[in-house]
Amino acid sequence: MMKKAKRIVILGSTGSIGRQTLDIVRAFPDYFNVIALATRGNLDLLTEQVAEFQPDYINYALPPGDSSHRERFKRIGCSYLPMEEMAALPEADIVVVAVSGGAGLDAVLAAVKASKNIALANKESLVAAGSVLTEAARKNYAKILPVDSEHSAIWQCLAGEKQRPRRIILTASGGPFRGFTAAQMQSITPEQALAHPSWRMGRKITIDSATLMNKGLEIIEARWLFDMPIGDITVLVHPQSIIHSMVEFADGSVKAQLGMPDMRLPIQYALTYPERLENDAIPHLDWARFSDLKFGPPDPVGFPCLRLAVEAGKKGGTYPAVLCAADEIAVDLFLKERLGFTGIAGLVEQVLEKHESITRPSIDEIKEADRWAREKALEIAGRN
Amino acid sequence: MMKKAKRIVILGSTGSIGRQTLDIVRAFPDYFNVIALATRGNLDLLTEQVAEFQPDYINYALPPGDSSHRERFKRIGCSYLPMEEMAALPEADIVVVAVSGGAGLDAVLAAVKASKNIALANKESLVAAGSVLTEAARKNYAKILPVDSEHSAIWQCLAGEKQRPRRIILTASGGPFRGFTAAQMQSITPEQALAHPSWRMGRKITIDSATLMNKGLEIIEARWLFDMPIGDITVLVHPQSIIHSMVEFADGSVKAQLGMPDMRLPIQYALTYPERLENDAIPHLDWARFSDLKFGPPDPVGFPCLRLAVEAGKKGGTYPAVLCAADEIAVDLFLKERLGFTGIAGLVEQVLEKHESITRPSIDEIKEADRWAREKALEIAGRN
Repeated sequence: MMKKAKRIVILGSTGSIGRQTLDIVRAFPDYFNVIALATRGNLDLLTEQVAEFQPDYINYALPPGDSSHRERFKRIGCSYLPMEEMAALPEADIVVVAVSGGAGLDAVLAAVKASKNIALANKESLVAAGSVLTEAARKNYAKILPVDSEHSAIWQCLAGEKQRPRRIILTASGGPFRGFTAAQMQSITPEQALAHPSWRMGRKITIDSATLMNKGLEIIEARWLFDMPIGDITVLVHPQSIIHSMVEFADGSVKAQLGMPDMRLPIQYALTYPERLENDAIPHLDWARFSDLKFGPPDPVGFPCLRLAVEAGKKGGTYPAVLCAADEIAVDLFLKERLGFTGIAGLVEQVLEKHESITRPSIDEIKEADRWAREKALEIAGRN
Repeated sequence: MMKKAKRIVILGSTGSIGRQTLDIVRAFPDYFNVIALATRGNLDLLTEQVAEFQPDYINYALPPGDSSHRERFKRIGCSYLPMEEMAALPEADIVVVAVSGGAGLDAVLAAVKASKNIALANKESLVAAGSVLTEAARKNYAKILPVDSEHSAIWQCLAGEKQRPRRIILTASGGPFRGFTAAQMQSITPEQALAHPSWRMGRKITIDSATLMNKGLEIIEARWLFDMPIGDITVLVHPQSIIHSMVEFADGSVKAQLGMPDMRLPIQYALTYPERLENDAIPHLDWARFSDLKFGPPDPVGFPCLRLAVEAGKKGGTYPAVLCAADEIAVDLFLKERLGFTGIAGLVEQVLEKHESITRPSIDEIKEADRWAREKALEIAGRN
């Protein structure tokens, strides 16, 4: 008997992770059934995706009053649905949350409350609201499955293990500016920062990778995904990005997950878990090309975002939400060339210093902290 | 409530693996209870071990007629028992088979027939009689748990995985003579060959590591332990011995197990599985010391034993038994300086060439092939 196809909702279908998710769907047309697609704005690509995957529901951001597209989509059997309703569709087997930044939080929360399996590529939601989301997931038997390559690696290494590990070792490529002097850091342009050495990713996460803020956010994300204290999560720089992360167990044994740096592998694992499917489109690890894997400690002085994230993660409360929101503004200002590369950490730090955190915040308090941080970041940046 | 201690039988208690097994027992005195110890001859050390661990049964090889020791052991409540009976003791929770060479086969078979959990350090038994032992284990619900660091690594990587992997990647240190020229190989002395760069091991396995025969035997061992075709098991040279082996899955994801090169880690894992226990005596992997891990292909021309083992493994029948037995004689002759280093592979190859294999051999036919191979190896060596 044919197995029933997995019904997928993809929030953020035109972004980097969304498009690669559809690559996986394309590779296994009988295995998946796309039932809903949402995007923030790339309507041309969404139109193509709708024609190819024929979802029942779509969502996109358009200028108010423009209803012609909505009508056109409706004529081909495709209804407009708010993103939170998509995330909670009763027929959905898995919800891929690949929208970037703070915009993902409500969707993740809706999916969690609807007891969904959530393939989570939006790390900001978990960083900002980890305590609320993980508690709601436990109550509602929702599963948050990592899509980040590092967290997917940890998840794979934990398979079959009965005990809490001693330590998580997140590997980091170190970004394109590893070894730069303070003076060199000053003059980094958005163009330079967008050229990541190993991974093909969206703009926000590429800049976060260059500042190591991304690794800092990943520490907080790992803290919630695997219920580990921040102090037991360490970072190891590994420029080739072949070992995607490691887990050290009580007896000193370490497990690592390896592969070519290709996001389609962790995306596919989240979508097909606990199965693994042959996919010839994903390049295999060829040891003839990797005669030499390098490792080293991170540089918390050259990359203060890593330190800021660890501190915010340890303090908890609304600090991580403020970290995320301030970073989102800072990266945006950097991309618009209104802030220097080193100014990103500087701005985030100033916002964090001004914040009065709330312990055990509600989702509304987290959103309020997010709003406050964005406003404060813009205010400080405007003054400088 | 206290958990009941695991009752252990250790066959080969005075050898390298046996002594390290007792190190683990010493670290967790409440967790383990040694009920039987067997050794081929180191009576002084056995006497110490008996005093410390107070087993109910002992076994040792002594000149015929010498019964004074037996009486002395009996007075302290320690009875002499044949090794095969020890391996099948009804009260045993786990049987560690750490005798070296062909001598382990009967003990493993007895343990398998008695449905025991067997921590198997004697690879020769599985190489020579893999089909018989694994079939008997299946029928009798016995479990063969690997103690070799490579196979322990693979076993750990397979935990929680639902599907057969695509490929097993056995790592090899490459031995102390990696990169030697043919001329240099000719003049290698036993002393040089006994100085292994990474692992503390017995003499036979240290020489087998230097010729890469050990890696060849491990390929055949992996074939039986993990039910994988020989063609899906590859060797990757990794001189630092930090990655102990890897498994590649259907989706291209690779898992590796890492640790310091210390046999106590895989021994402990086999003894405590599925638990993992904190053991501060086992050194932890310190990434500050490993900034650079190297990998490369093996050299089948410089190390023909690897090729011989793969060929014997693929042909099957009684070839692997002959490979093991001839190698045991060849290594012994090399250690006695009656055969050169390169002569080991030469002698094994000549014996294999003269062998007429039996397909699907019985245990008696395997033993007969073993006996024939030893005789033939000595005969050929005597002629040269």
